[in-house]
Amino acid sequence: MKFSSKIQRCELSPVRKFYPYEKAAMDRGLLVRHLNIGQPDIETPKPFFDAIRNFENNVVEYAPASGVEEFTDAVQGYYRRFGCELEKEEILPTFGGSEALEIVMSCIAEEGDEILSPEPFYPNYTTFINITGAKLVPIPTSAEEGYHYASREKIEPLINGHTRGILITNPGNPTGVVLTPEEAQVMADIAREHNLFLISDEVYREIVYTGKPSTMLQFPGAEENVVVVDSVSKRFSACGARVGMLVSRNRELMNEALKLCQGRLCGATLEQVGAAAMYNCLDQSYYDGVLAEYTRRRDAIVTALEKLPGVEFTHPEGAFYFMVTLPVDDTEKLQYFLLEEFSDNNETVMLTPAAGFYSDPELGRNKVRVAYVTAPEDLTRAVELLDLGIRAYNERRG
Amino acid sequence: MKFSSKIQRCELSPVRKFYPYEKAAMDRGLLVRHLNIGQPDIETPKPFFDAIRNFENNVVEYAPASGVEEFTDAVQGYYRRFGCELEKEEILPTFGGSEALEIVMSCIAEEGDEILSPEPFYPNYTTFINITGAKLVPIPTSAEEGYHYASREKIEPLINGHTRGILITNPGNPTGVVLTPEEAQVMADIAREHNLFLISDEVYREIVYTGKPSTMLQFPGAEENVVVVDSVSKRFSACGARVGMLVSRNRELMNEALKLCQGRLCGATLEQVGAAAMYNCLDQSYYDGVLAEYTRRRDAIVTALEKLPGVEFTHPEGAFYFMVTLPVDDTEKLQYFLLEEFSDNNETVMLTPAAGFYSDPELGRNKVRVAYVTAPEDLTRAVELLDLGIRAYNERRG
Repeated sequence: MKFSSKIQRCELSPVRKFYPYEKAAMDRGLLVRHLNIGQPDIETPKPFFDAIRNFENNVVEYAPASGVEEFTDAVQGYYRRFGCELEKEEILPTFGGSEALEIVMSCIAEEGDEILSPEPFYPNYTTFINITGAKLVPIPTSAEEGYHYASREKIEPLINGHTRGILITNPGNPTGVVLTPEEAQVMADIAREHNLFLISDEVYREIVYTGKPSTMLQFPGAEENVVVVDSVSKRFSACGARVGMLVSRNRELMNEALKLCQGRLCGATLEQVGAAAMYNCLDQSYYDGVLAEYTRRRDAIVTALEKLPGVEFTHPEGAFYFMVTLPVDDTEKLQYFLLEEFSDNNETVMLTPAAGFYSDPELGRNKVRVAYVTAPEDLTRAVELLDLGIRAYNERRG
Repeated sequence: MKFSSKIQRCELSPVRKFYPYEKAAMDRGLLVRHLNIGQPDIETPKPFFDAIRNFENNVVEYAPASGVEEFTDAVQGYYRRFGCELEKEEILPTFGGSEALEIVMSCIAEEGDEILSPEPFYPNYTTFINITGAKLVPIPTSAEEGYHYASREKIEPLINGHTRGILITNPGNPTGVVLTPEEAQVMADIAREHNLFLISDEVYREIVYTGKPSTMLQFPGAEENVVVVDSVSKRFSACGARVGMLVSRNRELMNEALKLCQGRLCGATLEQVGAAAMYNCLDQSYYDGVLAEYTRRRDAIVTALEKLPGVEFTHPEGAFYFMVTLPVDDTEKLQYFLLEEFSDNNETVMLTPAAGFYSDPELGRNKVRVAYVTAPEDLTRAVELLDLGIRAYNERRG
């Protein structure tokens, strides 16, 4: 039996190969500290659980493909905070931001098409693009430039007749880069001038340390180009709820997307009800509180990492990830070493080796993505373990 | 901006066009009785709600892409009732049966490929197939033969070098056809001999009036060919939970499917916990009770329809749908008439005109799909309305 050429161009998760080694380490009694995962430990707000517990219908019925009314109402209210008046038809609920990405890629891309995306990129983007038959064309960035990408010089030479869209994460995963208003305008201008979709993955929107939260939906003139991918996962620490959305004023796109949404019938009813409650019950103080907590975490990890010799990085501007260059030959080998041979006081640490964030793995060889989703003291200890681990690894290598 | 040629081959739901007319009828004060929708009114079992209400973690975290352990455990237990011992790797949770279908089609089909499916077929099958670039090739059936399709004479002439799989719904939607054990063996044999995937959508498995519930996973020799699509939606009247699964012993396929499951991270955590509780807490008496209820409904609608002159159908063998031939020129026109011009005692009725279930809409012109998911007395009244409506429609047409 044959498999499609497209699925064969997709890959299993690049971090998956470390799991058996992590499990073996834990089985040996080690405490494994995590700088590798994007699962926040912040509590999912009570309104989510309350709304689901108080669900009154005895039958968990299909929702409309266009969404549970109270959910789309709540999303409209949320976007009003950013000065965006959205019609119901401009919002489609999805299974997490992931399905929104799958849907938009299926609508706009196929064999021979190209989607530009700043490199390093979120690895699952390649899956969403490859499965359509199109390919991701990296917009190169560098550690020296702090991974900033919003420049005509970098992007316009890559645009050709096959280019269908530009896919960005803002705030950035894995880089922590946040577009300045001027940079965002450049991105909107490029998309408009070249008649491209600008797919803006804004799931980390509220977590911005420099400047204010924003959305590409705010940029006048690029309404037909901008497609926003959004989600409650990181905003409300509700990753397992799988409630995301596709938001665009391009009605033709939304009509195409609705075909796929109707095809799979609807999003989960209860989870949309829970998500609506969070949007409706939580005010600015909630977002401020979460941001303050991530700011403490960012400060803790940055302070700790700055003390490490040979470790280089740009201060993260948003989200809860950033790229860190380590003084080692190969961060994958380092990770295996940390799990198999290293320990300090019966503890070790996991990072995400950055090879999987690049189209050419060699480009990420001496880099890792660091995630800071745990308490400041845990992050400090994790960095201490990293420091000791790097020393031991390099000593061992001689 | 360009859209992919594949999304342009997909269509919006064929029944959607009647909604504005339904709304207008309701706004005029009419009670609209439904023989058109597959949303059962049976209560979602209490263990689902209890498990979600008692969820103890304060953070709704990502589930593993391979599923919440208690869910896959429960599914293993469920399939043991059918004599099937499944490994964890042979089960992948999905967002409803729909996503399982999307995933398997993405894994096996692309441009130039063909998927055979008995016609009339569930209309969303065309979306799942068209979006890959492949096409659905109908296996023709007839009302006279009761829509049975499992014959070498019907299927083998359609198989060629482009054929990748055969997609069946068993028990059937929209036909109510259930494969006999001999027919199921024929399907398994054809798939094995021609090296094809046999994708068996078994979401109505427990609702069988003739014979016993079964699964294609039981057929020895076709383990590598059979891919089962399953869901809790109809089994537990939990359509809005969106918990389905892909089940196959073909490890290569499951490994390809895992790439897509990892790409979109995971299914909904709480809903899997709720689904696991239903599998674990409900025993045979639950399935028996649901079947008894649908049997009462089937008997009520069959008895009522048998009295209608010129109305023809085969007794439904399973699921809660069947195809009915009506003595009218065009069932879509009839539906518009029922919503716009007809009423009896301030009530009217909706059906699903069958044109959308055929590759050539003309083939379904005088047919409807009838769904019986409400109480027997409601079904009887709905059929009375249909009878009066047909008479009025044909009188009006002269």
